[in-house]
Amino acid sequence: MNGAESLVQTLTDQGVNICFANPGTSEMHFLKALENPRMRSVLCLFEGVCTGAADGYYRMKGTPASTLLHLGPGLANGLANIHNAKRASSGMVNIVGEHSAAHLKYDPPLTSDIEGLARPLSHWVRRVQSPRTVAWDVATAVARASELPGQIATLILPGDASWQEAGDHPLLPSLAPPGPRAPDPARVEHVARVLRSGEPTLIILAGQATRGRALELAGRVKAATGARLATQFFTSRIERGAGRVTLERIPYAVGQAVEYLKGFRHIVTVETTEPIAFFSYPDKPSLLKATGTSVDELAAIGEDPVAAFEMLLDALGAADTAPVLQERAPAVVPSGALGPATIAQALAAALPEGCILVDESLTTGRETMGLTVGAAPHDLINNMGGSIGYATPVATGAALACPDRRVFCMVGDGSAMYTIQSLWTQAREGLNVTTIIFANNSYAILKAEYANMGAGAPGPQALAMIDIDRPRIDWLAMAKSMGVPAVSVDSAEAFHRAMVDSTREQGPMLIEVRL
Amino acid sequence: MNGAESLVQTLTDQGVNICFANPGTSEMHFLKALENPRMRSVLCLFEGVCTGAADGYYRMKGTPASTLLHLGPGLANGLANIHNAKRASSGMVNIVGEHSAAHLKYDPPLTSDIEGLARPLSHWVRRVQSPRTVAWDVATAVARASELPGQIATLILPGDASWQEAGDHPLLPSLAPPGPRAPDPARVEHVARVLRSGEPTLIILAGQATRGRALELAGRVKAATGARLATQFFTSRIERGAGRVTLERIPYAVGQAVEYLKGFRHIVTVETTEPIAFFSYPDKPSLLKATGTSVDELAAIGEDPVAAFEMLLDALGAADTAPVLQERAPAVVPSGALGPATIAQALAAALPEGCILVDESLTTGRETMGLTVGAAPHDLINNMGGSIGYATPVATGAALACPDRRVFCMVGDGSAMYTIQSLWTQAREGLNVTTIIFANNSYAILKAEYANMGAGAPGPQALAMIDIDRPRIDWLAMAKSMGVPAVSVDSAEAFHRAMVDSTREQGPMLIEVRL
Repeated sequence: MNGAESLVQTLTDQGVNICFANPGTSEMHFLKALENPRMRSVLCLFEGVCTGAADGYYRMKGTPASTLLHLGPGLANGLANIHNAKRASSGMVNIVGEHSAAHLKYDPPLTSDIEGLARPLSHWVRRVQSPRTVAWDVATAVARASELPGQIATLILPGDASWQEAGDHPLLPSLAPPGPRAPDPARVEHVARVLRSGEPTLIILAGQATRGRALELAGRVKAATGARLATQFFTSRIERGAGRVTLERIPYAVGQAVEYLKGFRHIVTVETTEPIAFFSYPDKPSLLKATGTSVDELAAIGEDPVAAFEMLLDALGAADTAPVLQERAPAVVPSGALGPATIAQALAAALPEGCILVDESLTTGRETMGLTVGAAPHDLINNMGGSIGYATPVATGAALACPDRRVFCMVGDGSAMYTIQSLWTQAREGLNVTTIIFANNSYAILKAEYANMGAGAPGPQALAMIDIDRPRIDWLAMAKSMGVPAVSVDSAEAFHRAMVDSTREQGPMLIEVRL
Repeated sequence: MNGAESLVQTLTDQGVNICFANPGTSEMHFLKALENPRMRSVLCLFEGVCTGAADGYYRMKGTPASTLLHLGPGLANGLANIHNAKRASSGMVNIVGEHSAAHLKYDPPLTSDIEGLARPLSHWVRRVQSPRTVAWDVATAVARASELPGQIATLILPGDASWQEAGDHPLLPSLAPPGPRAPDPARVEHVARVLRSGEPTLIILAGQATRGRALELAGRVKAATGARLATQFFTSRIERGAGRVTLERIPYAVGQAVEYLKGFRHIVTVETTEPIAFFSYPDKPSLLKATGTSVDELAAIGEDPVAAFEMLLDALGAADTAPVLQERAPAVVPSGALGPATIAQALAAALPEGCILVDESLTTGRETMGLTVGAAPHDLINNMGGSIGYATPVATGAALACPDRRVFCMVGDGSAMYTIQSLWTQAREGLNVTTIIFANNSYAILKAEYANMGAGAPGPQALAMIDIDRPRIDWLAMAKSMGVPAVSVDSAEAFHRAMVDSTREQGPMLIEVRL
């Protein structure tokens, strides 16, 4: 067994059985090792698709995927979506190919400081020193990636460590930690006192707390105390829809967020921080809460929110309180012009039970996602890192994690263009992804932000950097070029019908929503 | 005048009058400053297009372009082509937006260690500390980028430094160094002794030496001494074709390169190093020269090759020797099946005088570019850094640098997919770029490299990571999606005709060569 074979075998031993790959010459032995039948390898035509797909996979599975990237530049191409994954606390194991040690000293063309490129966005970076240690290196990488919160682990694999003999393969135990840390009882007790005060309180949930039992327990706290429940504007993954506890959403725009938060005397955080503005503006605050609002932490990132809420309910004597669950809103198919409201109504009517909604719709979806809380139960995934081009890769990875669930990927046209190569992988793998392109032919968000920044109305040169209508992207042709069937819609009823149609057959579909 | 206006004004004062931009919220004041009529701003839909275009612009102009990138992830998306530019000694000025200083301490979502991301691939990195110093910062950045060899200068621009008052605008002198350094007379004298020995000598040229007067002087040395002239396999820019001094090309494959080099007793380098293998292989050498071959430097990178050759010719008493110039080979239009030879023949017949050839054809063009040395005079640009996805952006930048010259961009299908968004900018700006996609539906180079690595014949899983034929990319649809006219050819005569046709009208064209 050579080093590459030991690496792949150890990945699968440790439960990592998918690899999003964009290989090059230095990874040929790795490719050979991917013949291991326990590993599924998925080819992506750009590295940002690999890393974004690993993010989406983790969000749905809760366990890390691996990526295969070609030297420093291959890693560099994946960094923007590693940034997004890191901010979403998604674990992943990046394997970055490298020249052999003996070759590196000649500074061949593809040489770069891979550790230097990896460190700013990785929690853990290591270079394999010998094929005989690669199994330990990989087991350590998987353990780090599997921590709660998930970590970015980057392992650099020189060619000689890949092709040389690794010796007998050790079957290593999992080195991953046993689970989330216990919350601090004193903090829980303090939050109980806050809630007993009866003063207006907002509990902000994130991380593991926006789904499953933690979410249901949060609903009991709300029912028992009158505290309101919310998320930040962007959250890694929310279970929502009929039968779930509904979380409010703190608005994105600074003015609206300040207005929303001003009535609360207390903010309680669960796996997140107090609300801050996404960007800075000349005349707007960074911290969004009102002066005098207290901020208390119920559970830190990586602490167990289920335990925290159970302890809190015990302290409140409210363990038996029933949560208020979201009712199913009647599905009304809208008709007529496409706009934020009719788009959201069409979505609410079309989303099948158990689907996954990946949202990078920016301006189009920003104000109206609330209209879908009464839809059939589904998962909502958002971009925690703010680097656009995250949605189509994340949808790709989510579909591989959950092959029986349809993924709806809502994405603005500008955002979609960053990592549009995702469509090809979706076609190749026959993934159940419905990509919804909101084609307003503009980085529309920047028009609003231009004014928000106090820059006035954009002049012709500035507008030329914001509008992407010359040429207008032909989305039907784009989808066709990569083997994805596509349809264009320009009314709310056609949009609804196209979404429903996309669920009737296996495989990807693209819907251009003409705005 | 605010900081952003001071920045753009200083860029243009210092001769940088083009900006390849992909802006975000933190750069709105920069967008406003781009209304400056002396600055041309070119929108790119992905940052790798911005940085690759800046590389192509520098290669043809010899002066740096600027890029506008959105925070750390925007820079990250541009890094692979910054790597390629750095290896080609192309100067560029990257302006990276950043949160305002007061906002940064809250670690908002788009925060990352921008300096950390920039340093591995930049020669110079600075963060603007005040709008009042931004003019000096920019002038310094331009000076660094303008050094010989060209440098990567990265300036981080916080939002508050952009929107705050900068005071009176200083018209700064150019801080750029006056030109290349003089070569060392002792080294020149030593090379003269080597050449006078009459022993077989290969002079390897790169940098500024592969064009203009330096190239012509090198031809005189060859005529006077019998030394042969060559380039590395990849060179930043070569002036070649009829009437020029023709340079041989050291082969890419290790075995062929060793065979090519084994007859030389001496290697003389001009702005390059001795030949090294691109990758390392288990049973192949890294250094390609024969044992006992001496290596002597005539001019180091950044030294003046014109002066070096003039001094050398004086030392040899051969200043008046006429160089041997390439004859025009009769243009014969090939017919029949498309293969490496007929493709090169069609190119040789079709290339118009003064065109620019950007080559990322990898397997298709690797062995046959020699067949085009007798074509009409043209410039050939190659990838020095090895990160694929360089050609379509570089062609975009070269076309903007030389609007009167047609650019032919030869690119493999796999490579083209990394930065395919270039087509949109080409359509938007009406650029004279003929993109030639060699569609073999495969990372064909990896099939050869798999065997070269001693990994044997690829199995089905490995092949699935190498073949990109499921689905086959529809290049006509891809071009149409971004507003570029396209044609598909499957014979040598059709390929020739399509190239000639593409030169008849202004604007971009895509030719799919079906292999």
